[in-house]
Amino acid sequence: MYLMPQDRTTGNGYNGGKRDEDLVLPINSSLSVTLHQDQLKTTTTAAISKDFTEDRIWLNGREEDVGQPRLQACLREIRRLARKRRSTGDEDPPPLSLSYKVHIASVNNFPTAAGLASSAAGYACLAYTLARVYGVDSDLSEVARRGSGSACRSLYGGFVEWQMGERADGKDSVARQVAPESHWPELRVLILVVSAERKLMGSTAGMQTSVETSPLLRFRAEAVVPGRMVEMTHCVRERDFQGFGRLTMKDSNQFHATCLDTFPPISYLSDISRRIVRLVHCFNAHHGQTKVAYTFDAGPNAVVFTLDDTVPEFVAAVRHCFPPESNGDKFLKGLPVRPASLSDELRAALDVDPTPGGVKYIIATQVGPGPQMLDDPHAHLLGPDGLPKPAA
Amino acid sequence: MYLMPQDRTTGNGYNGGKRDEDLVLPINSSLSVTLHQDQLKTTTTAAISKDFTEDRIWLNGREEDVGQPRLQACLREIRRLARKRRSTGDEDPPPLSLSYKVHIASVNNFPTAAGLASSAAGYACLAYTLARVYGVDSDLSEVARRGSGSACRSLYGGFVEWQMGERADGKDSVARQVAPESHWPELRVLILVVSAERKLMGSTAGMQTSVETSPLLRFRAEAVVPGRMVEMTHCVRERDFQGFGRLTMKDSNQFHATCLDTFPPISYLSDISRRIVRLVHCFNAHHGQTKVAYTFDAGPNAVVFTLDDTVPEFVAAVRHCFPPESNGDKFLKGLPVRPASLSDELRAALDVDPTPGGVKYIIATQVGPGPQMLDDPHAHLLGPDGLPKPAA
Repeated sequence: MYLMPQDRTTGNGYNGGKRDEDLVLPINSSLSVTLHQDQLKTTTTAAISKDFTEDRIWLNGREEDVGQPRLQACLREIRRLARKRRSTGDEDPPPLSLSYKVHIASVNNFPTAAGLASSAAGYACLAYTLARVYGVDSDLSEVARRGSGSACRSLYGGFVEWQMGERADGKDSVARQVAPESHWPELRVLILVVSAERKLMGSTAGMQTSVETSPLLRFRAEAVVPGRMVEMTHCVRERDFQGFGRLTMKDSNQFHATCLDTFPPISYLSDISRRIVRLVHCFNAHHGQTKVAYTFDAGPNAVVFTLDDTVPEFVAAVRHCFPPESNGDKFLKGLPVRPASLSDELRAALDVDPTPGGVKYIIATQVGPGPQMLDDPHAHLLGPDGLPKPAA
Repeated sequence: MYLMPQDRTTGNGYNGGKRDEDLVLPINSSLSVTLHQDQLKTTTTAAISKDFTEDRIWLNGREEDVGQPRLQACLREIRRLARKRRSTGDEDPPPLSLSYKVHIASVNNFPTAAGLASSAAGYACLAYTLARVYGVDSDLSEVARRGSGSACRSLYGGFVEWQMGERADGKDSVARQVAPESHWPELRVLILVVSAERKLMGSTAGMQTSVETSPLLRFRAEAVVPGRMVEMTHCVRERDFQGFGRLTMKDSNQFHATCLDTFPPISYLSDISRRIVRLVHCFNAHHGQTKVAYTFDAGPNAVVFTLDDTVPEFVAAVRHCFPPESNGDKFLKGLPVRPASLSDELRAALDVDPTPGGVKYIIATQVGPGPQMLDDPHAHLLGPDGLPKPAA
């Protein structure tokens, strides 16, 4: 059983479009920040037994179709690695038979499919868990990638690069840590969860359509992203927040621009997302420097990067622009944030008509480590009978 | 005094970004459709007199600052052309002195600054009016362009190309008619006026920022638009609605993508705009062909192209998705549209949660002619004293 950090794409990359849909190979490299498990985590338990008659999976307590292609691809790949390891015979064979069926239970402590990269965290955690169960200790990029491209990045803590690779078989399309989670202790991450409207357009299908129909996406992948990867890696290494923040915002905007250039177009940002964008730019303009930066995934929620000393004032600005409706006491989750008041100058600079309830809540978190094994048997999700334990 | 069609950018081009802000030279060519004056028009009266002590201008009955740089550029340019004409001496000199001051009154019969290209219509009408007053009959592209880039297209009726030109002085950056207004009689235009929210970002300043900060805009101008201009011109000449419609939508989407790639980003589309986009794609998917096409300018209002036999069903679909609030009787303006009901299949295919009041009203119109001189003296906007007549 393992805890798994949720991953977050920053500036460069994002798996916006894949060059091979089956192998889940991206058309450009990318860089992400792994978020801390204290705030956002996936917990997964896997077990194999001769008594199980079929592979089964439960997500958040509900049994799901184990036959979905991406899950099957993960299982095939981990079993292939386990067989390979056994056949090379350089270590003890794994104790359990590869023909045994597997039971998997997985829960997120954050909303699934809300554009919070739940599939990245989920598949990374699954790959790591299965590797322990099957005794595999080789690179798991491919196992995770087959489930969800960006999941390969979530196998590491800190700042992680997904190198697109060049080989047709994808063997060099792997994740590598750029800097560990301890590298930039002042960095903070605020997730602004936006009032959930029904998603207007899909996501995975959309990415393939982008590759096929957007002239801008190809240009971005070939001519823009490579330079930005170099620049972003440099900003992370130097802990240059201004450079990191500007590039993060520009790259998020460009990713969403290529979604809009897709035909039919894909729009993940809502009016509330755009108000958050405006808030961030007003906040930075007021301070005369990039103190906060946004990035958006395949959904309207904003992920905001900032440094610890800016968090209280920015949270106050969010409260001002998006006055919490009923749940004022539950507006802020995660890391504690000391109260702060807005100066009159900043309040005037924000220049936004308040939108009550536009942001449902904020999760305050930071950079975190890679997958962790849980020792506490009470944390196991499967009981001795191989079925999910009843929820507490 | 002249009536002036409002112009509409279609597929290709748009003046999305200018290569020379002062001369108002675009970074790519573009093509627009001139809309009919029966539905949308600017009316302008200009007079010069030795009794006027200063240049003055009234817009929609309110005096405005005549010193604004673009208006001054227009006046300088028309006076330069008038002097040039006089000095070449190949025709009678104009009857009035060039040193006389000018009074200008202009009214739109549609909301100004609502993203309905009011400045294009306004400056084209102004250029045409001033040319009559000053006896200038040369190409007015430059006069209109100095006021508002896209205004040069509105000097012609039908389908109009703005050739970007290559010369640094802009002398070859001129408008040319691709096909007259009579060319495609079945073509209809529906303007979906969206509930006016405060504009989140500006427009003219935004375009210059786009040129400076968007890598995608440059690529679009150099690598995408030239081919699309050829394709679009072909579709217009052949009256190929499917090709025309698809290219119109793709190019609108790509223009807005480059706005989003600008830093800070520019967003003209609202959630309602995106619902209209979705409605159009659902409508076309239901019919298995491109029967309607949207394009968006620097604002959330949609301009929808379709053919006359599709108008009733599409209007019914808009009514279904955006049920009119109080003003159901004034929901449809302009050309008459016969009532139609939606089939159950289409209703199901639309797959949109209705948004009451999301579209305020529809203006139904068609392709129209270029500027017209009004003979009726009652239509003059300035009285014998050179001041605006009291509004009726």
